[in-house]
Amino acid sequence: MRPRARELGLRPGQFAPGPLNAITDVAGVLVGQVTRIEGEGIRTGVTAILPHGGNPYVERVPAGLAVINGFGKLAGATQLQELGELETPIVLTNTLAVGRAVEAVVDWTLARNPEARSVNAVVGETNDGRLNDIRARGVTGEDVLAALDSATSGPVDEGSVGAGTGTMAFGWKGGIGTSSRVLPPALGGFTLGALVQSNYGGVLLMDGLPVGQALGRFYLREHADGGDADGSVMVVIATDAPLSDRNLQRLAMRATAGLARTGAAFSDGSGDYAIAFSTHEGVCRGAGYRAGQGALPDWPNDRMSPLFVAVAEAVEEAVLNSLLRATTIESRDPANGRRRRGEAIDIEAVQALLAQRG
Amino acid sequence: MRPRARELGLRPGQFAPGPLNAITDVAGVLVGQVTRIEGEGIRTGVTAILPHGGNPYVERVPAGLAVINGFGKLAGATQLQELGELETPIVLTNTLAVGRAVEAVVDWTLARNPEARSVNAVVGETNDGRLNDIRARGVTGEDVLAALDSATSGPVDEGSVGAGTGTMAFGWKGGIGTSSRVLPPALGGFTLGALVQSNYGGVLLMDGLPVGQALGRFYLREHADGGDADGSVMVVIATDAPLSDRNLQRLAMRATAGLARTGAAFSDGSGDYAIAFSTHEGVCRGAGYRAGQGALPDWPNDRMSPLFVAVAEAVEEAVLNSLLRATTIESRDPANGRRRRGEAIDIEAVQALLAQRG
Amino acid sequence: MRPRARELGLRPGQFAPGPLNAITDVAGVLVGQVTRIEGEGIRTGVTAILPHGGNPYVERVPAGLAVINGFGKLAGATQLQELGELETPIVLTNTLAVGRAVEAVVDWTLARNPEARSVNAVVGETNDGRLNDIRARGVTGEDVLAALDSATSGPVDEGSVGAGTGTMAFGWKGGIGTSSRVLPPALGGFTLGALVQSNYGGVLLMDGLPVGQALGRFYLREHADGGDADGSVMVVIATDAPLSDRNLQRLAMRATAGLARTGAAFSDGSGDYAIAFSTHEGVCRGAGYRAGQGALPDWPNDRMSPLFVAVAEAVEEAVLNSLLRATTIESRDPANGRRRRGEAIDIEAVQALLAQRG
Amino acid sequence: MRPRARELGLRPGQFAPGPLNAITDVAGVLVGQVTRIEGEGIRTGVTAILPHGGNPYVERVPAGLAVINGFGKLAGATQLQELGELETPIVLTNTLAVGRAVEAVVDWTLARNPEARSVNAVVGETNDGRLNDIRARGVTGEDVLAALDSATSGPVDEGSVGAGTGTMAFGWKGGIGTSSRVLPPALGGFTLGALVQSNYGGVLLMDGLPVGQALGRFYLREHADGGDADGSVMVVIATDAPLSDRNLQRLAMRATAGLARTGAAFSDGSGDYAIAFSTHEGVCRGAGYRAGQGALPDWPNDRMSPLFVAVAEAVEEAVLNSLLRATTIESRDPANGRRRRGEAIDIEAVQALLAQRG
Repeated sequence: MRPRARELGLRPGQFAPGPLNAITDVAGVLVGQVTRIEGEGIRTGVTAILPHGGNPYVERVPAGLAVINGFGKLAGATQLQELGELETPIVLTNTLAVGRAVEAVVDWTLARNPEARSVNAVVGETNDGRLNDIRARGVTGEDVLAALDSATSGPVDEGSVGAGTGTMAFGWKGGIGTSSRVLPPALGGFTLGALVQSNYGGVLLMDGLPVGQALGRFYLREHADGGDADGSVMVVIATDAPLSDRNLQRLAMRATAGLARTGAAFSDGSGDYAIAFSTHEGVCRGAGYRAGQGALPDWPNDRMSPLFVAVAEAVEEAVLNSLLRATTIESRDPANGRRRRGEAIDIEAVQALLAQRG
Repeated sequence: MRPRARELGLRPGQFAPGPLNAITDVAGVLVGQVTRIEGEGIRTGVTAILPHGGNPYVERVPAGLAVINGFGKLAGATQLQELGELETPIVLTNTLAVGRAVEAVVDWTLARNPEARSVNAVVGETNDGRLNDIRARGVTGEDVLAALDSATSGPVDEGSVGAGTGTMAFGWKGGIGTSSRVLPPALGGFTLGALVQSNYGGVLLMDGLPVGQALGRFYLREHADGGDADGSVMVVIATDAPLSDRNLQRLAMRATAGLARTGAAFSDGSGDYAIAFSTHEGVCRGAGYRAGQGALPDWPNDRMSPLFVAVAEAVEEAVLNSLLRATTIESRDPANGRRRRGEAIDIEAVQALLAQRG
Repeated sequence: MRPRARELGLRPGQFAPGPLNAITDVAGVLVGQVTRIEGEGIRTGVTAILPHGGNPYVERVPAGLAVINGFGKLAGATQLQELGELETPIVLTNTLAVGRAVEAVVDWTLARNPEARSVNAVVGETNDGRLNDIRARGVTGEDVLAALDSATSGPVDEGSVGAGTGTMAFGWKGGIGTSSRVLPPALGGFTLGALVQSNYGGVLLMDGLPVGQALGRFYLREHADGGDADGSVMVVIATDAPLSDRNLQRLAMRATAGLARTGAAFSDGSGDYAIAFSTHEGVCRGAGYRAGQGALPDWPNDRMSPLFVAVAEAVEEAVLNSLLRATTIESRDPANGRRRRGEAIDIEAVQALLAQRG
Repeated sequence: MRPRARELGLRPGQFAPGPLNAITDVAGVLVGQVTRIEGEGIRTGVTAILPHGGNPYVERVPAGLAVINGFGKLAGATQLQELGELETPIVLTNTLAVGRAVEAVVDWTLARNPEARSVNAVVGETNDGRLNDIRARGVTGEDVLAALDSATSGPVDEGSVGAGTGTMAFGWKGGIGTSSRVLPPALGGFTLGALVQSNYGGVLLMDGLPVGQALGRFYLREHADGGDADGSVMVVIATDAPLSDRNLQRLAMRATAGLARTGAAFSDGSGDYAIAFSTHEGVCRGAGYRAGQGALPDWPNDRMSPLFVAVAEAVEEAVLNSLLRATTIESRDPANGRRRRGEAIDIEAVQALLAQRG
């Protein structure tokens, strides 16, 4: 089994991760994934993140969105921003599957809420068309439902799984990655976790190590095999800190720093988004909130900075995990029949660079 | 046949409409609609607006978006904003049909563009669940394709048709409405058209006439039969003026003024959006633009004001047309079997009020 | 003394005003004004709004901003949006006086807070250069301090006073206007007040009455004496409802509806802004909030709509008051020595139109 | 004389700098600075950037703004965003001097434009209160005018000069820094330059080198001498590429990546902004543009990515230059008379770390 970043000695930042070093370190958060590898073309899937095990349509969590580069098809963006909340799980999949994923999230929500007539499905995507026969529309509504229904706490599968099955990052195989941070009690003691679907490019840095340059694979390199930098990244952030939607939006914005430190090019064609939500019971918007009886705890503005640092760290490490845990994926280009290969990054080469740095 | 606003003597504003008094007065714009009335439950449909008869994925038009109140499920918002352009038609439908409409617009686009692997489908909606059995998901992908494929220039059907089949506005039957304005040559001579899907509430004003109050039907009235004010409105604006995406966004924002003058409450649950695009050949983003060889005409900031006035006028009149042309729609509530009725506004009552005003 | 709108029978909307029909109906809010009429050129002033009588730098109020059209010099915008709060009073003045007004608000704040090293002065403006010799820079820092220091509760002077001394609206003399609304207990029972500095144009409507057209003075009229529509409007909204900064931002956005109903053109050169803040003790951000011990009441999203309606009504009526209470101001154009006249709207003509409507 | 980054072998990124490795490599751009070091308290100044040597009020340049974290007092933000242009130079100074700097920029503009009655002064700031007696208001309007009037092309002074005289970054002395990049002809051949006023914190990275950790000085370190991370950074970006204001805004947003790679914490109290403008003659908004006769070249969206990479590189290197070229500044705290010291980073220590990395 391929190592995670921390097993290689890559430990971005100063805060310690939680026990799983995963978004599921935030109590209550569930992740479910469906991987679709079929024939020579289909290399895709679905990753679903649930803020809690209850009914998200009834027990809404406050949420914020950062549109870092809006070249993407994220569904549900404007209502999330207007109301500052999630009313469905977050589903990640491929670019051309957003429509049916929205449809499935609506199905899932209607089934649980007989009165519901309006559903703001939040569905993000990246384009796995470099490996996946994306025009074949491999993902089905059933896949989305299966991801939702199989969601669990505990460790999260990383690499070439779920919505990361066919994605590429920095010219290597990308995928799903996750990480977490726990703040010391003096800074609030909160847990924060990130999950990424990495499918973007640039010049890969691993905790400052110039891997992309050292291995000669990067965006804009002459005779580039680093391919283009487009493709997108979706970041999902959970925390148990009692944050307002405004401060969740600010938290989401700081995902940019973590991505930048991996060498992201933030290219024109990369749809880069981060969604942050809080699972803190006090800020959950249930029946009491709707009755106007709420009294919400609100972590103040001027205590946010350690959380901002933690999110950048967790996002950076989640990306590293997505690359390191990814396994090579091969397929055939439906347009011309040629073999395509999303090569997993060479662990030994990374180790050698690390040893060299000392 | 029920009259349009202008036939009743309602002529909001100072500019003259184009020959059709419709969004199709903007040369090249096409509208297609599919109306779904089935059994006692299904009262819904699709309205598609195409910026031109060519391939919108290849010949992209600059566009701007105003999120007036983001309680809606508009798909495609962030990419439209980031790139300032449309790459698909605009499709309007009901709230729970957005997923399949996105799917259909992707189908439609892939079929016309064999190389395409990324499609930003722009799909807006309002919630017709007061009359339509919205949970039954009456709209299909085929309906969307049929609307797209039947799109034509010429007069536009208004009222209880297409995406307006089941909508309500101000307590009466709402629906699709359209109007246009032509600026005098000294102000640029441009044509501008608006199309609305009206499904919102407030206290109805018709060219200043307090119809809602006079007829005793309005939002927040005691023993209210004006119902709630939620529901949403989608506004689509086309112009042949050579505008930048930024000035199209500003133009879209002015739809707010037109809505306000109809008495809109801009309530929490009303997703109110306006999308504006330019059909001017010079600003179209085709092969020349992508080659970096473009030299775009750009109507200057300080000449925008007459267009801002015109859009408010056209939106106001489009809403009036949507109400006046709407016909009564009846259905049965699937939850309890009760009859529901979306009553067309009483033309004679409006005429009497107008006569009274003199 | 010239009448307010309500004394003429103009009563926009359905909610009742508070006892003063002024922003000062919101308990604690203070307004101070300084009017500068000097020689033949200076026709300007300052209007200051304080959220409470305490130290606004220590007891911060949550606030939201709507940038309706950003052609203006509003100072303090980005920090207000980022933190969702005010830390100074709001000062209104003329366009070219913003620098020194910021300077004065900083002085005022430093004097009260010996530790302060950072101050986000919020200063709005409109351009009174049609009547005021604006290049002469008539407003001084002392004027700003005098406005702040003289701020009181109670009735608010309207018309050609304070920051409205030299402003024009719809071709007539504009100025300062205010109004308020009280929600019935079933809708929360809150009080909401608006204050405007009117200096914009369009086609004047008074509670639906087409005054601009009837009196032949409006934007874009041939041989226009309605002048251009540029000039700007600043709207300040206070409420005692316990709103989050996000819902205050949404509330501010609804000022657009009130302006639209007065016939605003929302022209390119009109900087149209609304700032809303809450005075509710529970949402005030004092020492407890900063200690992270806060538990904020939060009026829920889906109960906001009546407040949205109320703000549109109060803004509309505040504009009417600004026009009706304004007195004619004359001056001489410093560029060419010509007499200029900002004519107060003819009350009798308005009354005649009202009588005609019946 | 202390070395610039490149002289130490720090060469972030893959593109080459221009001949001066400064924002003034973009033809026409002028920079002027005034440094105020007086007595034991005043350690502050002004840095002015002019897009060209002509009249910026008449020959306006398109511009975009990224509000990375809006805890700052940037004047002119909303009009810059609404119109997508600059009509004045950009002035940088300290937090409490924004008012008088706005005043001075207005003076400067009125003097050059006898008809002007509205001026949108763009003034940015960071808080130099850790070294400067900021409450003493050392900067005067004359300083601002002197900076504007002394602006020249050619090399730019860096470090503890101008608006960087009293700033701190990462616990060391920060200041003004600049850098540039030239794209290869195949990528457009454009020049792009950045200038920063560094006054923020985090964990310092120099081209990936973990200097902050190695030297034991960083944000959130126990017994922190890295101080807090607040303070802000202003970034100004110039390019000769013919960009729309929207693409300039996207370009500005990518400054975030450069800052992140220096280890920025993006803390709550750090007002982080980037303004980008184009000097390309074709997009300049002069008399032809205002006459509606313009035909603007527009570099297309999908060719922006190399510019995005270049801006991140230039911003990163500009920050390094600001630290490396900064000289130690001492002062006395006016509140308690204690000595304060902004220590320049130890060049030899950095060289040793670099040598160690090999």
